[in-house]
Parts: sequence; C-alpha cells; structure tokens
Amino acid sequence: MTHFDDLGYARPDTGREARLGLPEVVYGPGKTVEQVIGVVRSLLAGNDGPVLVTRITPEDAAEVVAAVEGGGYDPVARLLVWRPAPPRDFRVVVASAGTSDWPVAAEAAAVATAIGLPVRELRDVGVAGVHRLLAETETLAAADVVIAVAGMEGALPSVIGGLVGCPVIAVPTSVGYGAVFEGVTPLLAMLSSCAAGVVVVNIDSGFGAAIAAHRMALRAAQRVAR
Amino acid sequence: MTHFDDLGYARPDTGREARLGLPEVVYGPGKTVEQVIGVVRSLLAGNDGPVLVTRITPEDAAEVVAAVEGGGYDPVARLLVWRPAPPRDFRVVVASAGTSDWPVAAEAAAVATAIGLPVRELRDVGVAGVHRLLAETETLAAADVVIAVAGMEGALPSVIGGLVGCPVIAVPTSVGYGAVFEGVTPLLAMLSSCAAGVVVVNIDSGFGAAIAAHRMALRAAQRVAR
Amino acid sequence: MTHFDDLGYARPDTGREARLGLPEVVYGPGKTVEQVIGVVRSLLAGNDGPVLVTRITPEDAAEVVAAVEGGGYDPVARLLVWRPAPPRDFRVVVASAGTSDWPVAAEAAAVATAIGLPVRELRDVGVAGVHRLLAETETLAAADVVIAVAGMEGALPSVIGGLVGCPVIAVPTSVGYGAVFEGVTPLLAMLSSCAAGVVVVNIDSGFGAAIAAHRMALRAAQRVAR
Amino acid sequence: MTHFDDLGYARPDTGREARLGLPEVVYGPGKTVEQVIGVVRSLLAGNDGPVLVTRITPEDAAEVVAAVEGGGYDPVARLLVWRPAPPRDFRVVVASAGTSDWPVAAEAAAVATAIGLPVRELRDVGVAGVHRLLAETETLAAADVVIAVAGMEGALPSVIGGLVGCPVIAVPTSVGYGAVFEGVTPLLAMLSSCAAGVVVVNIDSGFGAAIAAHRMALRAAQRVAR
Amino acid sequence: MTHFDDLGYARPDTGREARLGLPEVVYGPGKTVEQVIGVVRSLLAGNDGPVLVTRITPEDAAEVVAAVEGGGYDPVARLLVWRPAPPRDFRVVVASAGTSDWPVAAEAAAVATAIGLPVRELRDVGVAGVHRLLAETETLAAADVVIAVAGMEGALPSVIGGLVGCPVIAVPTSVGYGAVFEGVTPLLAMLSSCAAGVVVVNIDSGFGAAIAAHRMALRAAQRVAR
Amino acid sequence: MTHFDDLGYARPDTGREARLGLPEVVYGPGKTVEQVIGVVRSLLAGNDGPVLVTRITPEDAAEVVAAVEGGGYDPVARLLVWRPAPPRDFRVVVASAGTSDWPVAAEAAAVATAIGLPVRELRDVGVAGVHRLLAETETLAAADVVIAVAGMEGALPSVIGGLVGCPVIAVPTSVGYGAVFEGVTPLLAMLSSCAAGVVVVNIDSGFGAAIAAHRMALRAAQRVAR
Amino acid sequence: MTHFDDLGYARPDTGREARLGLPEVVYGPGKTVEQVIGVVRSLLAGNDGPVLVTRITPEDAAEVVAAVEGGGYDPVARLLVWRPAPPRDFRVVVASAGTSDWPVAAEAAAVATAIGLPVRELRDVGVAGVHRLLAETETLAAADVVIAVAGMEGALPSVIGGLVGCPVIAVPTSVGYGAVFEGVTPLLAMLSSCAAGVVVVNIDSGFGAAIAAHRMALRAAQRVAR
Amino acid sequence: MTHFDDLGYARPDTGREARLGLPEVVYGPGKTVEQVIGVVRSLLAGNDGPVLVTRITPEDAAEVVAAVEGGGYDPVARLLVWRPAPPRDFRVVVASAGTSDWPVAAEAAAVATAIGLPVRELRDVGVAGVHRLLAETETLAAADVVIAVAGMEGALPSVIGGLVGCPVIAVPTSVGYGAVFEGVTPLLAMLSSCAAGVVVVNIDSGFGAAIAAHRMALRAAQRVAR
Repeated sequence: MTHFDDLGYARPDTGREARLGLPEVVYGPGKTVEQVIGVVRSLLAGNDGPVLVTRITPEDAAEVVAAVEGGGYDPVARLLVWRPAPPRDFRVVVASAGTSDWPVAAEAAAVATAIGLPVRELRDVGVAGVHRLLAETETLAAADVVIAVAGMEGALPSVIGGLVGCPVIAVPTSVGYGAVFEGVTPLLAMLSSCAAGVVVVNIDSGFGAAIAAHRMALRAAQRVAR
Repeated sequence: MTHFDDLGYARPDTGREARLGLPEVVYGPGKTVEQVIGVVRSLLAGNDGPVLVTRITPEDAAEVVAAVEGGGYDPVARLLVWRPAPPRDFRVVVASAGTSDWPVAAEAAAVATAIGLPVRELRDVGVAGVHRLLAETETLAAADVVIAVAGMEGALPSVIGGLVGCPVIAVPTSVGYGAVFEGVTPLLAMLSSCAAGVVVVNIDSGFGAAIAAHRMALRAAQRVAR
Repeated sequence: MTHFDDLGYARPDTGREARLGLPEVVYGPGKTVEQVIGVVRSLLAGNDGPVLVTRITPEDAAEVVAAVEGGGYDPVARLLVWRPAPPRDFRVVVASAGTSDWPVAAEAAAVATAIGLPVRELRDVGVAGVHRLLAETETLAAADVVIAVAGMEGALPSVIGGLVGCPVIAVPTSVGYGAVFEGVTPLLAMLSSCAAGVVVVNIDSGFGAAIAAHRMALRAAQRVAR
Repeated sequence: MTHFDDLGYARPDTGREARLGLPEVVYGPGKTVEQVIGVVRSLLAGNDGPVLVTRITPEDAAEVVAAVEGGGYDPVARLLVWRPAPPRDFRVVVASAGTSDWPVAAEAAAVATAIGLPVRELRDVGVAGVHRLLAETETLAAADVVIAVAGMEGALPSVIGGLVGCPVIAVPTSVGYGAVFEGVTPLLAMLSSCAAGVVVVNIDSGFGAAIAAHRMALRAAQRVAR
Repeated sequence: MTHFDDLGYARPDTGREARLGLPEVVYGPGKTVEQVIGVVRSLLAGNDGPVLVTRITPEDAAEVVAAVEGGGYDPVARLLVWRPAPPRDFRVVVASAGTSDWPVAAEAAAVATAIGLPVRELRDVGVAGVHRLLAETETLAAADVVIAVAGMEGALPSVIGGLVGCPVIAVPTSVGYGAVFEGVTPLLAMLSSCAAGVVVVNIDSGFGAAIAAHRMALRAAQRVAR
Repeated sequence: MTHFDDLGYARPDTGREARLGLPEVVYGPGKTVEQVIGVVRSLLAGNDGPVLVTRITPEDAAEVVAAVEGGGYDPVARLLVWRPAPPRDFRVVVASAGTSDWPVAAEAAAVATAIGLPVRELRDVGVAGVHRLLAETETLAAADVVIAVAGMEGALPSVIGGLVGCPVIAVPTSVGYGAVFEGVTPLLAMLSSCAAGVVVVNIDSGFGAAIAAHRMALRAAQRVAR
Repeated sequence: MTHFDDLGYARPDTGREARLGLPEVVYGPGKTVEQVIGVVRSLLAGNDGPVLVTRITPEDAAEVVAAVEGGGYDPVARLLVWRPAPPRDFRVVVASAGTSDWPVAAEAAAVATAIGLPVRELRDVGVAGVHRLLAETETLAAADVVIAVAGMEGALPSVIGGLVGCPVIAVPTSVGYGAVFEGVTPLLAMLSSCAAGVVVVNIDSGFGAAIAAHRMALRAAQRVAR
Repeated sequence: MTHFDDLGYARPDTGREARLGLPEVVYGPGKTVEQVIGVVRSLLAGNDGPVLVTRITPEDAAEVVAAVEGGGYDPVARLLVWRPAPPRDFRVVVASAGTSDWPVAAEAAAVATAIGLPVRELRDVGVAGVHRLLAETETLAAADVVIAVAGMEGALPSVIGGLVGCPVIAVPTSVGYGAVFEGVTPLLAMLSSCAAGVVVVNIDSGFGAAIAAHRMALRAAQRVAR
C-alpha cells in the first residue's frame, strides 16, 4: 500500500488505490503537458480504476488525449477521464444556487460520475426564491449525500441542511463581486452555518466535494460488505 | 436648521431635528457621565422630540437618570429614553434568526418604539428550520419595513428579501464563533445577498436599522402630506 | 406567487413579480448567451413588467438583442432592458462623489429609470469641495430617496445623511488605488457612518441601490392605496 | 415534519427529529438560564431522542440541571445531555494533534457519544513525530469516519486523509499563538489540504464534526434498512 | 549627535535632541517602573529639553513621579512631562469629530503643549452636522497645521483638507464598533482621502501627530533663522 | 472661494486655488479623454496656477495634449502638466529605497517640480546597505522635507526619521511580492514606525506626498509673509 | 528513533532526542498542571538532555516544580528548565529593538542558554537611532547566528542582515498598537526584508528562534565531527 | 566594506561581498534592461564572486546576455548568472511537495548551485502520501540544511522538521486556489509549525531560502577556519 513510481519530476502514488479506493487524481495547473502525460501513463499502468486530470485547459487536454488514448474531456468541468468507473449504489444530489454557479457544480457532477457515483442535478434553486428548492423535497430526501454549491451569501447549504438528515457537503463558489471577495464570503458563511453538521470544502472545489462523497460511498459499501 | 450648542466638550446639533425629523441621538461609549448629562440637557432644551442615549451601561444610566428626570432605561437594549414619541402609522417587523440574536433585535425594537414606530417581533425564525419563517408570511406581507437580524451565516435577510416587496434592512450580529469573526461573516453575506435590494447596516447596529426605518417612515408621511 | 419555469439550466422565478412588484432580474456574468436568451424569453412570457439583464458586455448584449427583439442596451451601465416601466411618483436623486464614480452611478440611474423611478443626477459633489454639495441642498431636500455613490474614503453619504431626513442608500465604488482596496475602504466607511440610519449595498452595486429604492417606492404606493 | 413550539423568545423546532434523525441542539451562549430551561423542556416534551446544550458554563449548567432533572454535564466538553442515545453500529475515531487540542476533541467525543456514536480516541498524534500516528494505522483503517482535530498548522487531516479511505472531518482549533490567528491558519490549511476529499467544519467546532458524523451514520443505517 | 547611554536594559539616545530638536520620548507600555525611572533620569541628565513618557497608567505614573521629581501627569492623555517647553510661534489646531474621540485628541494636544506648540481645540465638529465645522472656517484658516482626529468613517480630514491650504495630519481613532474594526476603517479612509496632501499617522496616535507638527515647526523656525 | 464650474459630468472646483494655493488636480483613471479635456480647459480658464493630470496613459495623454495646447507629459511619472510653477524657496529631498521604487518616487518628484518645489533625488539608498544612506547625511540635513519612498519592508522612513528633524513623508510602494501584499506591508510598517512623527500617504502615492510638501511650503511662505 | 510513551492524554516523543539532538519541549498553554507533570516525568525518564516547559505561568510553574524536583523557573521568559545543558562552542547574539521587546528576547536567550548555546545580548538597538547598532558591529561580526527581535515596523533584521554574513533569525513581537496589529506588521515586514536570506519565525516566538539556532549549532558540530 | 558605486539610478553595494561573502544580487522586476545591464557591469567590476539577476523574463535576459557576455539563463528559475562559484562542502536538500511547486524549488536549487552550494532534489514528496517522504530518510539525514517547498496547506516542513535535526527552511508557494490565498495559507501554516525551530521565508522565495543556506554555509566554513 506504500508503492510509488519515481519519474524524477513526480512520484505517482500507485499505492493510493489500495489505501483510498481510488487512484491518485492529477491536479493540472502548474504542470507541463509532458509531465501530465507521464503521470497519467504511470497511474494507468499502476492502478485499475479511473484516472482523472482536473482543471486542465482544452488546449492541454487535446495534447494529452492525443498522446494517451482513451481519454475523454469535459470542457465545462475542465476534466480529463480515462477508464470511468461503473455506477455504484449511491445517490448524489448536486444542488446549485444560481445558473452562474454551474461550472463548479459541473466539476462535482463530472468527477462523481467518472468515479462511479450516480448524480441527480438541481440547478438554480437559490434561496431568494425558496419555493424552487422546497418543490424538490422528495429528491433531496432520497439522496445519500447532497453537494450544495453556492456563491454570493452561500445560504443554500443552511436551508438544505435543515431539510435533510443525510450528509451535506457545501461548496462555496467565487460567483459574485465586491463583498463576495472571490468566494471568501460564501466560504465563511458555510463554515458558520446554523444548520448543524454541514461540512465544507475549498472555494470552487467541486472536485473536493465529489471525492468526499466517494469516501462516504466507499465506507458505506465496506460496511455492507462486512 | 444649522443651530448647535457649544458645551466645549461637545456641540449638540440642535438643528438636526428640523433637518432630519428627529433630535441627535447620543452614542454612549467613550463619554463620561457628566458629558452625557450635559448633552442630554442641551438636546432636551433645544428640541421637542425624543432624546435617546444608546449603548449605555446600567451603572452610568442610573447616574444620568438621577440627574435628568424623566428618563427610562431598557437594560437589554442598553437604551435611555426621554420623551418617547407617540406611535406613527408605520409597521416595522423585527425578525431575528436565533434567540441569541435578541439583544441586537431588542435595540432595534426599543429605538423604533421610542421614536414612534410600532414594532411586531418575530424571534427565532432562522433558516435551519425555514418552515418557522414561512408560517409568518402574512405578518411579513403586512410590514412597511422588515428589519432582519442574524448572526452566523446571516442568511435570514436573503430568504425574507425573496418573500416580500417592502424594504428589508439587514442587521448582522456578532453571534457565533470562529469563522463568524464577530459578525464579519454575516455582514459580508448580507452585502452579497442574492435577494435584490436588501440594504445593510453595521454589525450589531439595531440602532442604525431603526433610524433607517425612521427615514422611510418620515418620508412616507411627508409624501402623504404633500 | 410561487410559480417558476424549469429550463434545466435555470428556474426563472415567474412568481417574483407578484411577490416583489418586479420581475426577476438576470445577473449576466457566468451565463452563456444562450442561457441569457432562454431566461429572458421565459421572464418576458411569464411576467408583465420590465425585464433586465445586468453587467452584460456589449458583445453578448448584441447577440441577445438580435435574438430577442425589443431590448435596449446602455453601454455605460452595461444594462439590457425590455419593456421599461412608465414613471412612477417617486423622486430618486443619484449623487456621485467624483467623475470616475459615474459608471456605478449610471447603473443605479439606468436601472431606476427602467423600473419607473424618475432620477435626478448630481455628479462630482465630493467632500473635498463641500460647497458643491451644499449648493444642491434644495434638490436633496425634495428627494424621496438619495443614492449616494462614492469611492476612496466614501464620505459622501455621511455628509448627505446629516443634511436630509429621507432614506440614504450608500453605494461604495472600487474607484481609487492602494488603501482603497477595490472598494473595501468606502464600504467599511459607509457602514461606520456617523450619520445615523444610512444603509449600504455591495461594492459597485448601483443595481442593488436601485432595487432598494424600488422597495421603498412600492411600499409607499401600497400605503397610499390602502 | 414542520412542527415547532412558540415560546415567544424561541421557537423550538420539534419537527427536526423527524427530518434529521436528531432533536434540535441548543447553542448555549447568548441565552439566559431561563431561556435554556424553557427550550430544553420544550425539546424534551416534543421529541424522543437526546437533548443537548452546548458551550454552557458550569454555573449555568448547574442551574439548568437543578430545574430540569436527568441532565448530565461534561465540564471539559461544556456539554449538557438528557436522554443519551444507545450506541449505534458506527465507529468514530477522534484523533487530536496535541494535548492542548483536547478540549475541542472532547466536545466532538462527548457529543458523538451522547447521540449514540461509539468513539475511539487517539490523542497527541501530531505530525512533528509522525511515527506516533503511523503506529495507529490499524485503528484508523477500522474507522467509519475519522474526526481529525488540530491547531497550529493543522496538518493532521492531510496525513490521515492520505492513509485512509473513509470520510475525514477536519476540525481546526484555536490552539497556538501569533500566526495561528486563533484558528484561522489551521482552518485555511485544512480547506487547502492536498489530501483529496477532506471536509472541514468551523474553528473549535467539535460539535459540528460530531453532527456531521451523525449524518453519515444515519444515512448508512437507512441504506442498510432499505 | 550619535551619543547614547547604555543602561543595560536600554540605550537612551541622548544625541537625538541635537539631531531632531527634541529629546527621545519614552513609550511606556512593556517597561517596568524601574526601567521608566532609569530612562527618564538618563534623558533628563543628557538633554536640555522636555522629557515625556506616553501611555503610562496613573499607578505607574505616580511611582515614577515619586522617584523623579518635577514630573506632571495628565490622566486623560496618559502623559508624564518634565521640563515642558516654552510656547513657540506655531499655531496648532486640534479638531476632533466626536466627544468620544477626545482622549486621542487630548494626547495630541497635551504632547504638543508640552513641547512648546500652542494648541487651539475644536471638539465635536464631525461631518454629520457639517455646519459645526464650517462655523470655524476662520480658526482653521489661521492654523499652521491642523490635526484632525476622527473614528468611525474618518471623514473629517477630507472635509478640512478641502477647506485649508496648511498641512493636515489625520489621526484615526478606534472609536466605534463592528465595521470600524478598532480604527482600521478610519485609517484606510484617511489614507484614501480625496483631499490631496492629507497625511496620516497610526491609529489613536495623538502622540505621532504632535511630533509631526513639531517637525514642521522646527523646520519653519530654522528657515526663518537662516 | 466656493466657486465651481458645472460641466454636467464634472464640477471643477475653481475656488480651490484661492483656498489651497493650488488648482484642483485631475485624477486620470476612470475618466474619458473628452472628460479630461473638458475639465482641464475649465481649470486653465478658472485658475492662474499649474494644471495637472495624474496617472494618465501615454495614449490618452497624447490625445489630450493634441486638444489642449501647452501640455507636457512625463511618461515615467504618468503626469500631464500645463503652466508649471516657478521654483519656490523650499528644498524637497526624494529618497527611494530601491531602483524598482523609482516610478513612484518619480511621480513625487515630477509633481513637486511642476508645482514649484525644487527636488533633490537620492535613489537606491535602502537599508540593506545603510552606509549608502549615511553617506548622504548632509543632503538630508539641508532638506525642508524628505519624501521617503520604499516597498518591501518599508524601513527607509524609520531610519531617515531618526537622522533628521524636518518632516518626513513616507510613501509605501507596491514593489515586491508575496508577503508585501502589493504595498500593504510597507504601508503598515511606516504607520508603525518607531521614529516619531513620520507621516504616511497612500500606497504608490507620490502625488499625495508632493501635495503634502506643497502644504508645508505654502504655510512656510505665508508665515514668512506675515 | 521512533519511540514514544503513551500516557493516554499525551504521547511524549522520547525518540526525538536521537533524531533532533534535543528532547521534546513542552508547550505549556492548554495543559493542566497534572498533564505537564506527567509529560515532564516521562521526558526526564526517557531522555538524557534538558527538559523545558515554555509559556507557563508562575503559579503553574510553582506547582510543577514542587512535584518534579530540579526545575528552575525564569519568570520573564516564562520558562521551566530541568537539566540545563553545558555550553557549546556556538555564539548567539540576541539583539532587540526596544526595551519593550525584551520579554520575547528573554525567551530566546533563556531557551538558548538552557540548551547550551552561549548568548550575548544587545538591547535597545532600534533603527530610529541607528548609531546604537553600528556601535556594535564587532559583536555582530563575531556571532555564529544573530536573533533579531523587533515589534512595530520590524526593521532591525533588515539592517543587521545588511551588516553581517552569518544567519539572521528575525522574531517579530506584538509590541506596539494600532497598525502593528499585534505583531502582524513586523512579521510581514521581516518576511519582505530587502536584506537577502533573513529567515523568520512566529510572532513572539523567542522559543522558535532559539531552537532554530540549535539546529544550526547541532549541524555545525556534526560537520566538525565528521 | 562600505564601498558603493553611484550610477544615478542605482548604487550597487560593492562592499557587500566583503561583508556578506557574496556580491549583491539584482532583483529584476521594475528595472529597465538598461538599468540591469548597468548594475550587472558595476557588480562584475567591483566584486570577484558570482553575479545574479533574479525573476527576469526570457526576453529581458536575452538582451542583457547580449550586452554583458558570460551570462547563463535558467528559464524555469528565471535566473541569470555570471561567474558561478565552485562547489563548497555543504549539502543542500531541496524537497518539494508537488510537481506544481517545482518552479519555486527550481529557483532555490539554481541560486544555491550558482553560489556554490551542491543540491540534491527530492520532488513530489507531499504529505498526502507520506511514505514517499519516509523512503528518503537517509537523504534527509545527510543534509546540512533542508529547503522544504510547499503550497496548499504547507505541511511538508512540519513533517521534515520532526525527522531531522539540521536547519529546515520552509518556502511557501502560491500553488493552489481558493483558501490557499496565493500562498498566504502555507506561509501562515509554516510559521505556526508544531515542529520546533523551522524558519520561514517569503512566499515563492526560493531565492531567499538559498541565500539563507549560504549564510549557514559561510558561517560553517568560517568556524572550521578559525
């Protein structure tokens, strides 16, 4: 479980799949195309599961896909995927406050789908028209986890957290201007939520929320298995 | 309209009542009891309307009341009042998210009442149990202005702002800990509200909200009169 | 009052006009042109009043107007408008501190005009030459609401708030450099105003100020009607 | 599911147990002893499960327990509990970086225990002597969720997140001085964790972490049941 | 000009009087009474001009005065003075926005007086009643320097800076609450002043403003002399 | 002294020259070329002294100069000047810490020169090689005012303030990276200077420092005249 | 090298002496007296070198010393020491800017002495009288490392860093007020130092600086030995 | 030792090599190519050792190299070098957490190499797969100094600091997004490290870390020599 490659510029952690149930995911920014290609090849060779590169530009993604066949690219989520996983028995709802929050929600949804977590999307259910959210109470109640994505004042996870008993993962986005401070305001609001037990990931990190959901799904499956 | 006294240590703005429809209000902190007494006497002599001292401790208030008769003290709102105004035709709803927010809401309610604005209170209607707020839709709809008081993530004004068309004055409170940063988080959240047209006052400033309501009531009365 | 469309990528809140006296306003950034077009069509169909898109670029605006006829674009305010409302009986004064603050003041003025609030503009009345503002005392006294727009130290609303009894909505702008911190300084200064009852909206949010004025105007009209 | 009491000063959300699987928890600060007593009585009457008051001082707790029998107080966790729940089949590991972090970890452990989640504690396993943590790999591997509590640089959740596949809830503490900024530094560090899928709650919020664990346990039980 | 004593715990800079026209001033906080006594004795022996200790408590001041005769203490300014200087030909106006700002203004006035700068005080001339300031235009015009002291939004120096051509030294105070952030807001506002050429000193630093005035007075005298 | 023009988009304060001894200076950013031209023409017509536009780009400056003859442009200082003033009897030393700070120092020097204040420049005298500064002690001693310009840790004004008795105006620059925070660090350091009586202007505001020097020079001249 | 005790509430890292050349040091705050006693006993038993407790109050220290004989307490440094180490061949100079900075410098000196690093102290050598520092050039040149302690603008390490070639460890202190922000300003200034290669530790962390010096001394001795 | 050139725009500190064992290093940003050329020529003429220009763009570097022969450019480190020093007996390990951190680590490595410090690189040894770091224990143990480079939560120096006794210089990078705040989070985390004696340099300052290593190497050599 502590294997790794040594490529000189990187040490792909090939033991991670055994420890965490998922191969290491490649963070795109700051790496050259050559480095991404090398790491992806190492991970494909050293693991069985899905291999992902996040936050990669269309131009770089095209070069990588040309070099390593089998990769699919989602331009909204900026995600590259090889060997997507088959769907598991775990229901993820991705709820987003405004249409402008969608790129972040899309990353959450695309990563979740790629690693085998079926996703149901609820878009534009922000609290300034709270009846739009209340109309989806049944969908929310059926979820194994809700990923709640919001910018501006970031109130959506608080309202959802008061409606459902399942885990709620709050994702602040950098949508808005001025006092939103590029996502700091919804981040702090979500951490200060009056709805108990809401958990939070980094600003714009749809990726982090999806992996948190994976951790829950993995453990749930292991519990059923034991 | 530009009259003022000169007490040496202070220049009570006795022209303010003519300009703003309300005598100058005395901010208690940082003033000695003697200074408060002097300013209150000047304002009582130079104006006709209610005279208020905000954020004054019970001990100081007792000394001032002993020196200047006719004053009443509200220990929750920390407010001293002489010559409270008769009720005007203007309906203020003060809604607060949690029981712990009440001292701030109480200041808003006490100041509003003292200056002649009738108040209807809705306490503990925070968004983690949004049905408690939705049960008060009629009360909200009848308001001429809603003062929405909340700490933590400060989401209450956003939800109310989506329910009613009247002005919504958001008051962030310092209730909470950690990422609440003594009210900074609800302050920023309220400024970033996705409910259009919500306006905001300083942290814990129930006073500021009540005076903002006064400005609306004053203008409404002047409009009716013209 | 809780109707909404479901376009998949958005849920236009067509019940908002009944609740708030104004259709939902579209926030442009982060939406594709196709999404803007879809939402505008939904709002035009589901409401009677004016439909607005804020902060949209000239290029995107041109595409939208080509697809949905009847729209007018104001390039300074970056505002798209369909079906502007007829003037109501409510006097808005938009006062701005410097010539460089005008784009923000222009958004306030354009939105207010589009939703039927007549506007009187006072430009370049900053406090470093306070006689320029004092020369307009009569104009200010006749206002039903003053929208005070300022960057840098943001002192204008404090001075105006001491001159008039009507509501004063302060709009901080990001004009200035260094210690202005892109509008944070005037924002905090306005929240800390020694002029009682000044209310504040987000940095550069001429839009928010105009809608706040709408809330006051709506309620004033409802009061006259009852 | 939308029932609530109205005590005037508070509206206990008695429907919350049905919605969230746990009665509303009372946040102690800012409430008078009388208010706490009233809310606790309402919750005991309107729910079946455990009733908790968090962050209450020993003095206030003694008064409340004298008035409402059956309550137990934990002075380290500052927690009052009535009707603790029987243990469920869900393994919580609470790992803390330093001895000084224990009060926060203790709140997580006490709340978890009170609501029926069995806890295994690992204290003083900070990263400056990482062998102390690595010696507990088996304990960590058996967990259904790990609550990782750390102040200062807040690195513990990152290391744990790389060792285990189950959910990791990071709790920053205000332990440390200077550049720790009362917990802001570990909070930001945890949100920025290079270990994917770590989720974060508010500074010093052992309570929030325990309720997040409850949400996972509740959903796991519901999944088994379906 | 580079002489100094070496007391072990301190090195009084006895050459400073020759370089700067004024002996070193002792900053009280963080020093023991014994250390203050030792430094004062060294400075009295090594210089001819006034010796000052700032921000010293009444209790410590009493001990120091008992040990070093000739010292006078001002409890509002928290200032200890030996050998005050005779008045020079230089007119300082200390203007303060509110009565609560007076302790800071008092430090400026007391230090200035002690070092030989005659002071004219204007208290409570804040911008929310700007006519109070405009009534003092002649006093301001006669000043060689204006020290403008204000908390909250800190607008006073901007207005004064637009009225007079002499130097304006802005002193932010920590008066106010919430968004005032203990003086940060007026500090930033003063640095962002739209009145050109306003200079700023540290929060609550009446001392710094007085010494800045000394620098101007010293140079003015030297210019006359040459 | 309270005259002003009204151009609609701007109100040039033509009374400012009488009040402050210098015409209003035009801040370039955020104004159209047409607006700059209009304001400059108004100021040239309504005043006798120098007319300046700050922070204007070479492109805009060329257009303005083409429209309003007699203007000279300094591309390093980004300054446009008409009718520069003849030299007055006042010695300004502009000292800068590093070569990279020069653009800010250049603005101070260019503005000072344009308004008639003779300037002596000391470049690259930063504290990491303090002998370079000590070699200029005589130049510093002859100054009527020192403008000390520094980025990074901003220590230069502290060292100079300990060497000379004349006024020291500190100008923080945004030179540096990381913990310099675009000038915030030298700004705060200068405000916290242990050298008494150092005054500070906004980040990168060579302009503000030059006008502060003007205020001192003006008053010095008026004192000599009386 | 990976041994540790398990006391339940703490895991003293008894392998640290072998790895780092020094036993683990106990951080006092947040631990009970009983916990401190237990950890100290464990460390004394499991190591050969000096055992230290930092930032412990006189009251707690007295209790600990009564329980574990051989301990010595320094009240200025707030340091408890057992088995101080004999002096090594390594010269530490602790230079502090002001008398008020001494408590922090004292912690550095006391810890260094306790672990066998001889210390030479230079107090009150701040940059506002830079000749006091320049008079000590020889002392500085003989140092193996300089620990430079300063609050306010934190300029001392920059000047020292330009004078000597040995390592310079900068320690910001919380001395000062207002814009010093409890040590944030000197911290940022030191990180931004224009003197290359200055390294920084946490605010008020005389302890951290002493241990950093230990690391240098340890390695120097190992190099000589090989 | 206090020699310097005076080029007008710069004063190259040619005495620095005698004082610090290394010529002044040129900071590229904010200087024109002509200025860089002039300073480099002055330093080559006035010193014997290596001459470096940091953070210079490829375009500017090419111009400088064309004008001053003998220069070599490293595009990843953005470093220009003349007369690199021969290797000294001092072992520097540069460890970096992620592949994306490499440009900063590369600057540390390139500067160290240029000034004669042999470098061993360990890349991609971040704490989310801590076994990758533990596999290099021997390399770390042989180091005279470790430069630990990390973005995001910046935990790497804490873990290394617990493994080795030699000096550890922490370099925060701006790698990451959202709550990383361009390197502020790892900066604060490193300053708050629970591993005693870790020292920190500015964000992204591989340069600063290399010069700090130089100071240690220089002193170590001087100690051997005496």
